[in-house]
Amino acid sequence: MSDRQMPPAHPFDFDAIDGDKLHEECGVFGCIGVTDAANFVALGLHALQHRGQEAGGIVSYAPDHGFNSARRFGYVRDNFTKQSLMETLPGALAIGHVRYSTAGSKGAAIRDVQPFFGEFSMGGAAIAHNGNITNAEALRRELIERGSIFQSSSDSECIIHLMARSLQRDIPSRMEDALRRVEGAFSVVAMTRTKLIGVRDALGVRPLVLGKLGDGWCLSSETCALDIIGAEFVREIEPGEMVVITEQGVESTKPFRAKRSRFCIFEHVYFSRPDSIIGGQSVYETRRQIGVELAREAAVDADLVCPVPDSGTPAAIGYAHESGIPYGMGIIRNQYMGRTFIEPTEQIRNMGVRLKLNVNRALIRGKRVVLVDDSVVRGTTSRKIKEMILDAGAAEVHFRIASPPTAWPCFYGVDTPQREKLLAATMSEEEMRDHLGVDSLKFISLDGLYRAAGEDGGRNNAHPQYCDACFSGEYPVEPADMIEKGFKLKAAE
Amino acid sequence: MSDRQMPPAHPFDFDAIDGDKLHEECGVFGCIGVTDAANFVALGLHALQHRGQEAGGIVSYAPDHGFNSARRFGYVRDNFTKQSLMETLPGALAIGHVRYSTAGSKGAAIRDVQPFFGEFSMGGAAIAHNGNITNAEALRRELIERGSIFQSSSDSECIIHLMARSLQRDIPSRMEDALRRVEGAFSVVAMTRTKLIGVRDALGVRPLVLGKLGDGWCLSSETCALDIIGAEFVREIEPGEMVVITEQGVESTKPFRAKRSRFCIFEHVYFSRPDSIIGGQSVYETRRQIGVELAREAAVDADLVCPVPDSGTPAAIGYAHESGIPYGMGIIRNQYMGRTFIEPTEQIRNMGVRLKLNVNRALIRGKRVVLVDDSVVRGTTSRKIKEMILDAGAAEVHFRIASPPTAWPCFYGVDTPQREKLLAATMSEEEMRDHLGVDSLKFISLDGLYRAAGEDGGRNNAHPQYCDACFSGEYPVEPADMIEKGFKLKAAE
Amino acid sequence: MSDRQMPPAHPFDFDAIDGDKLHEECGVFGCIGVTDAANFVALGLHALQHRGQEAGGIVSYAPDHGFNSARRFGYVRDNFTKQSLMETLPGALAIGHVRYSTAGSKGAAIRDVQPFFGEFSMGGAAIAHNGNITNAEALRRELIERGSIFQSSSDSECIIHLMARSLQRDIPSRMEDALRRVEGAFSVVAMTRTKLIGVRDALGVRPLVLGKLGDGWCLSSETCALDIIGAEFVREIEPGEMVVITEQGVESTKPFRAKRSRFCIFEHVYFSRPDSIIGGQSVYETRRQIGVELAREAAVDADLVCPVPDSGTPAAIGYAHESGIPYGMGIIRNQYMGRTFIEPTEQIRNMGVRLKLNVNRALIRGKRVVLVDDSVVRGTTSRKIKEMILDAGAAEVHFRIASPPTAWPCFYGVDTPQREKLLAATMSEEEMRDHLGVDSLKFISLDGLYRAAGEDGGRNNAHPQYCDACFSGEYPVEPADMIEKGFKLKAAE
Amino acid sequence: MSDRQMPPAHPFDFDAIDGDKLHEECGVFGCIGVTDAANFVALGLHALQHRGQEAGGIVSYAPDHGFNSARRFGYVRDNFTKQSLMETLPGALAIGHVRYSTAGSKGAAIRDVQPFFGEFSMGGAAIAHNGNITNAEALRRELIERGSIFQSSSDSECIIHLMARSLQRDIPSRMEDALRRVEGAFSVVAMTRTKLIGVRDALGVRPLVLGKLGDGWCLSSETCALDIIGAEFVREIEPGEMVVITEQGVESTKPFRAKRSRFCIFEHVYFSRPDSIIGGQSVYETRRQIGVELAREAAVDADLVCPVPDSGTPAAIGYAHESGIPYGMGIIRNQYMGRTFIEPTEQIRNMGVRLKLNVNRALIRGKRVVLVDDSVVRGTTSRKIKEMILDAGAAEVHFRIASPPTAWPCFYGVDTPQREKLLAATMSEEEMRDHLGVDSLKFISLDGLYRAAGEDGGRNNAHPQYCDACFSGEYPVEPADMIEKGFKLKAAE
Repeated sequence: MSDRQMPPAHPFDFDAIDGDKLHEECGVFGCIGVTDAANFVALGLHALQHRGQEAGGIVSYAPDHGFNSARRFGYVRDNFTKQSLMETLPGALAIGHVRYSTAGSKGAAIRDVQPFFGEFSMGGAAIAHNGNITNAEALRRELIERGSIFQSSSDSECIIHLMARSLQRDIPSRMEDALRRVEGAFSVVAMTRTKLIGVRDALGVRPLVLGKLGDGWCLSSETCALDIIGAEFVREIEPGEMVVITEQGVESTKPFRAKRSRFCIFEHVYFSRPDSIIGGQSVYETRRQIGVELAREAAVDADLVCPVPDSGTPAAIGYAHESGIPYGMGIIRNQYMGRTFIEPTEQIRNMGVRLKLNVNRALIRGKRVVLVDDSVVRGTTSRKIKEMILDAGAAEVHFRIASPPTAWPCFYGVDTPQREKLLAATMSEEEMRDHLGVDSLKFISLDGLYRAAGEDGGRNNAHPQYCDACFSGEYPVEPADMIEKGFKLKAAE
Repeated sequence: MSDRQMPPAHPFDFDAIDGDKLHEECGVFGCIGVTDAANFVALGLHALQHRGQEAGGIVSYAPDHGFNSARRFGYVRDNFTKQSLMETLPGALAIGHVRYSTAGSKGAAIRDVQPFFGEFSMGGAAIAHNGNITNAEALRRELIERGSIFQSSSDSECIIHLMARSLQRDIPSRMEDALRRVEGAFSVVAMTRTKLIGVRDALGVRPLVLGKLGDGWCLSSETCALDIIGAEFVREIEPGEMVVITEQGVESTKPFRAKRSRFCIFEHVYFSRPDSIIGGQSVYETRRQIGVELAREAAVDADLVCPVPDSGTPAAIGYAHESGIPYGMGIIRNQYMGRTFIEPTEQIRNMGVRLKLNVNRALIRGKRVVLVDDSVVRGTTSRKIKEMILDAGAAEVHFRIASPPTAWPCFYGVDTPQREKLLAATMSEEEMRDHLGVDSLKFISLDGLYRAAGEDGGRNNAHPQYCDACFSGEYPVEPADMIEKGFKLKAAE
Repeated sequence: MSDRQMPPAHPFDFDAIDGDKLHEECGVFGCIGVTDAANFVALGLHALQHRGQEAGGIVSYAPDHGFNSARRFGYVRDNFTKQSLMETLPGALAIGHVRYSTAGSKGAAIRDVQPFFGEFSMGGAAIAHNGNITNAEALRRELIERGSIFQSSSDSECIIHLMARSLQRDIPSRMEDALRRVEGAFSVVAMTRTKLIGVRDALGVRPLVLGKLGDGWCLSSETCALDIIGAEFVREIEPGEMVVITEQGVESTKPFRAKRSRFCIFEHVYFSRPDSIIGGQSVYETRRQIGVELAREAAVDADLVCPVPDSGTPAAIGYAHESGIPYGMGIIRNQYMGRTFIEPTEQIRNMGVRLKLNVNRALIRGKRVVLVDDSVVRGTTSRKIKEMILDAGAAEVHFRIASPPTAWPCFYGVDTPQREKLLAATMSEEEMRDHLGVDSLKFISLDGLYRAAGEDGGRNNAHPQYCDACFSGEYPVEPADMIEKGFKLKAAE
Repeated sequence: MSDRQMPPAHPFDFDAIDGDKLHEECGVFGCIGVTDAANFVALGLHALQHRGQEAGGIVSYAPDHGFNSARRFGYVRDNFTKQSLMETLPGALAIGHVRYSTAGSKGAAIRDVQPFFGEFSMGGAAIAHNGNITNAEALRRELIERGSIFQSSSDSECIIHLMARSLQRDIPSRMEDALRRVEGAFSVVAMTRTKLIGVRDALGVRPLVLGKLGDGWCLSSETCALDIIGAEFVREIEPGEMVVITEQGVESTKPFRAKRSRFCIFEHVYFSRPDSIIGGQSVYETRRQIGVELAREAAVDADLVCPVPDSGTPAAIGYAHESGIPYGMGIIRNQYMGRTFIEPTEQIRNMGVRLKLNVNRALIRGKRVVLVDDSVVRGTTSRKIKEMILDAGAAEVHFRIASPPTAWPCFYGVDTPQREKLLAATMSEEEMRDHLGVDSLKFISLDGLYRAAGEDGGRNNAHPQYCDACFSGEYPVEPADMIEKGFKLKAAE
């Protein structure tokens, strides 16, 4: 059931039409042992806003005030900076969540916004989830059959119901119990009245890091959110690890069957912020290095290297540096663009990418331009950018893409179009070049990408070091719900 | 957990301080077999707004659109009249609910607003509940122990969880199952994808009526809501009856153990609208007749009979008619008052009843005035009105009250102060007169009230025809939760 | 130019369609010499809300903060009770205004909401105006020709521009200068940094009274607004009088040519609140007396006298008392109705008067009913009420109207339909009875109305004691703008 | 008088505290001869949003609908993209304005938002003004003395009052008349019912360009706003030129006394968007060239050139290119920052620049970093950035500033702190370096800046080619109002 509480009527998702990007669906953050923890959570979520812009929520606990929560559509900065709201979230323990709206869904409801909360006989618990449960529909059917009442349309709600039905006597054990039934990729941050809990799935697909803040601790999707509050980065939570943090310290267990790590390589390419550190490596440096590899793999004689702002910038810098071709800002981004419009006029609907980007005509005119972008998803934006560049008088346009062709949907917490909408699922590189109408089009190779990400020997095809299902079609966790709905694995094609 | 979604910050409940009235906590309405059923539900709820002013909700079902719901704080007229909202509630089947905010609660959340919805394995159901479950806390503990996750702080949510856990195979049977575990007073309106369901508890404490609207049917707390949509009043749902209405017609069963009816007599005194018909009798006429009985029981030599507007008006008309003393509007009500203020100034907080009522000085001056009010709860407003009347130069003030002394709290869906706050719980009639500082104070007798309500022989003390616990302290259903919390029954005092 | 700032899009004025009433267009209130004067002004305006429901504004002055203003659409209680707003209006001197929206105007703008403010070389002044300037269009043309820039579409803005161009050296003298150029009916409340000023036109058409509040003073459209703040009624401002109030006291002058007073008789019939005192006489008592006169002039054999709530109530009480026919509430008013709906559904548009009124069927059935209403304007509501009464089973319906037939528009600050829309302008009493489809229809005579209003000898036709142009067509001030637009005076017909 | 209509209570201007930038106060845009002109104006204003983020307004004219306007606080994209609003602005002729809020003002009012409108005897006119009137206070006093009523606190309102009082018979002539009385720097876009008018002051301090859009025309502050709507850039309006555009074409006159052009050089440095063309030269290229000049004037041995995003980026690219030092993104900007916060918590107030910028630690660590910023105003942000860079482990920090020291306030439409708040007004370059605590600090020379802006011979000190008062203290128009208030010119120091 969709509750028409929110968001405002008739939003028009500009990104859904023109953004032509994959979108991380969530960011999570939690804090324990610090005064006004919700304030730090709000700041952490602000730093993680790129992982989910539609809505955010915070739950806090204080002994005298119990659990309190606030959930809002819109940016963190527009909601969770107000004193009047933050005063309703007292306590030294809090967790929070930002989420991305899945394009085309019939309409979001505030009840779908995390964290989710459950009252158990031993007390309450709240959880925030980044990832996707690949057997959620089967679990949901089973839970309803047993008498659970779901309040949201979010698959993540399964976890709290599984916990409610666990026979275990304490909340961390119930969470273990619940997460053992869950298939898929997830990083979870949870809280009870006294504990902050973090868990990553056995493959470690989605990120989660531990930080130290004064006498307290925090958990975050990325290190950039530790920086904003001045917390010190301690370490990554390991694949398959559960940490239970109290005021006494951090206890670590490994409740799940051990597997080889398969971290999402697209976090390096696009999802994570460039100032975050993943696996000991700077995301910015990885991206710059992708540009270097691209320049080696796909050199071209040209006058100017331009990024498609802002995600193509580090790779463009690397490409320019390696190739010796001057770097310049051929495309200027309007800083006042947001993602959605409420009931826009026809003209706004038709403006598309021009609302966001403008060509720096004086720079482009007469030049042979290398355009560096992070990925090509449906190709709609790439075509428009190419047209704008040619209209401005470029002599040649060469696309260089900082990831391999995206040919497969992600089922682990990323919003991807259906497979048939992915340009690379239906066309060869040559066909794509013709379709986009550019002078040349080159994607980095999968091995090149792995090298840039620190795997000097490239991809280990027997045991790939990353999850690269969106490029390779090799899914490390079987997407059970989707297969039931008719999705065909690569082997089955 | 309280979710700080809504309502707006810092409301100041004028009624809680000055209103000095008991408040019905809910009104329910449902419709089946009519185009745009939600529209009719909205109109019905508008007519039932006096039963709950804080918030309202509507759930509708249409085969192509599934279940949809909207829940809002504020008046029905301010929310459920807008085309943009009503378009999101399509279908020929809908139910709705208005609720009163319990004064002093820490802050309401939109998730507490009914109807509640549950997805079961055989499909979804929504329910709206008028009344109170006297064993709700015990039920809640039991359900949590078994693994249910409660989403609201409302006791009515128990019903949907009990239904989810029922072993029965269809929703009406599950509802029977659930309601058999529930103690207290309730009238329930519920819906599945194809059925509109109405149930009254075995004592029939709260009202529920059946109406016919073209080829469709409706269920309503009161007949006045049938009038507004032009529906024909068919009959009352009987105590202990469940009706299941489909497009084929109305099926009636009596799933609960039969008991003698104990309808709430305060519905006659104050809760119901005067243009409603209860038990075949006009509420207006009952109230007028109370005035007649009062004039007989408590005559006084005076110049003018004035109602305390608006609830005292029918009894004042009856008193004036029977006594031959002229009737006049000695107190004028400001039509632009609402019930709450958002973050009011100190001055507004202190204005109290003067914001709502003003004395008609020219009429009152020098007169011996009989003031007719419906009830005295805490006596705060009565004192202020007396002062205003004397300031305006009245020669004498005689209070005549259209109900017996309210000495006991209600546990069946009415918001009553704690017993010690009830003036009549701690004072004799004589002491109350002195406390209020009036020349005389008389309440109608319990027998007089029963006579006015159509029981010519007065109250049958062995088997009272009504629930009159607020006057008599005789509770027809044991208030289990409250007894556990320390409430003492009359026998135990 | 209409500025689309406000009010909210697509309001549907229920009254404009169904209200079928004349509407006073304004109420004014001012205070000097009291702490937080704006608070008292807000309370006064709340008591005057019946004189204008669309919007309100307050200007205050404090030596350290200068002039401040706030203007809002909506009720006073919803805007001017909030501490956060009221804190922006400091000072011991303030004036305020409530206004009615003229039905059918293209859309109101916040800039049309009074008080108006002007900065002159000797300091600032704010004015609030109740009434109408009959030569406003000619004045506006002249002022524009001379170089004034109008910011609102309100005719009242002329006054501030006339003041700006006056050659006088102090603000009260400039106001005199300005008001001498103005034709029409007006009561003005104004303020400078140190003075509260009140003026009534020479005929005294619109009311204005002086009150004492502690060491300070207030000016108000009606006495009921003095009551709410506990101010003492001192006296009415006289026709043609200007009072200039400082902390030193009240100075009175008579700057205009003396004329015989012509107070608006419709203030007695409908506009003023029944608890106000006008010309030493209670409005309630005048209305009750109209009912007495009606019973004498237009007796009928019947079973029940019912008011059309709420404006017909005092006259109905008088009619019942004089005729000996029992008084009863045959029509019940929904207390939760407001005046406008935002973007309502078709169904709401069609509901009309049923959203507001319901028949008390049990009381009406089989009876011969006398319905007492204050006036008949277009007759649309009267017809619907008659139908509701007959549907409920009344045996006979007799309309008794507490004013003479309304056959002429008002040009002195009242919103009236064009003449051809007034039922009495095109039909005889007989024709109206047939049109309304009632068993009898009687209006009080003009002499009867004057007698009820305290003129024992009835109307002095040579020198009428009141302005009764809406009944008689005799306009005490020539409506120059309207005549220029083609309006024909009675003599000219 | 400040009208407390808007904006929302208690905004906290992040830029005012931490932004440490000069701010252009306005952008203007107008269109004639195109269907739904207001839509194009909205898009143009969106592209000019960097020139004013606080509020925007549009006025349109259509023969059947007259003049209509809408003025709103907030971004263009949040207000002027909605169909429901844009439908209220019909017509083929429209103008618009975006404005910056002057930090520290007591509170803005919607009535201060342009365009301003005036009704004259020959019809209405609206004007939008970019710049500042240096004799506004004297003009205002004179106009008030003559009887004008000002409605806003904006100096620009003088123009419309001067026009109202002109003896000329048509609006363009009245505008000439008015602008001849006005001193200062201005670009004005205005409209009547049939004409679009553009004017630049005789020095041409603020920009204004003419574009062709199909059969219609547009006027814009910058060329980037022509690009977004696909209009063709025709030419700049010349200093001292007035163009009157009708459907017949463009008429040009030069109503003011000719002077040498003194275009604002800070438009090149910071105000204008890099994709705009000014004086035939790309703003981006000028800024890149400033970096080149800086590398020549102030070379340093270092490992990395980083821009302070986003305004330092083009100069950093130029510096890196010229110096051969690698370019990298050492500071990452949070894309989800806005400019103001509503009632923020203490913690948010204290976060400052960390809410917006984060250091890319992995890149910076151990490096000798050249930081390129566009300007140093108060130096507060520069200090914080330096601290962040050093905290991240940089070996050395060298600041290179793409403008000369900002030592004088601007009085021509730019929001500058008082002179004593400007770091360069009170410190030498050496002192500033110590104050900022960096290893070296170098500003580009005034001649270097002129060379980058296309003046190969550098600054002509006898007749400077630009207005550079903020650097040189040489004011091309005497700031009369400020001098009256005590401001001392350089000569007077």
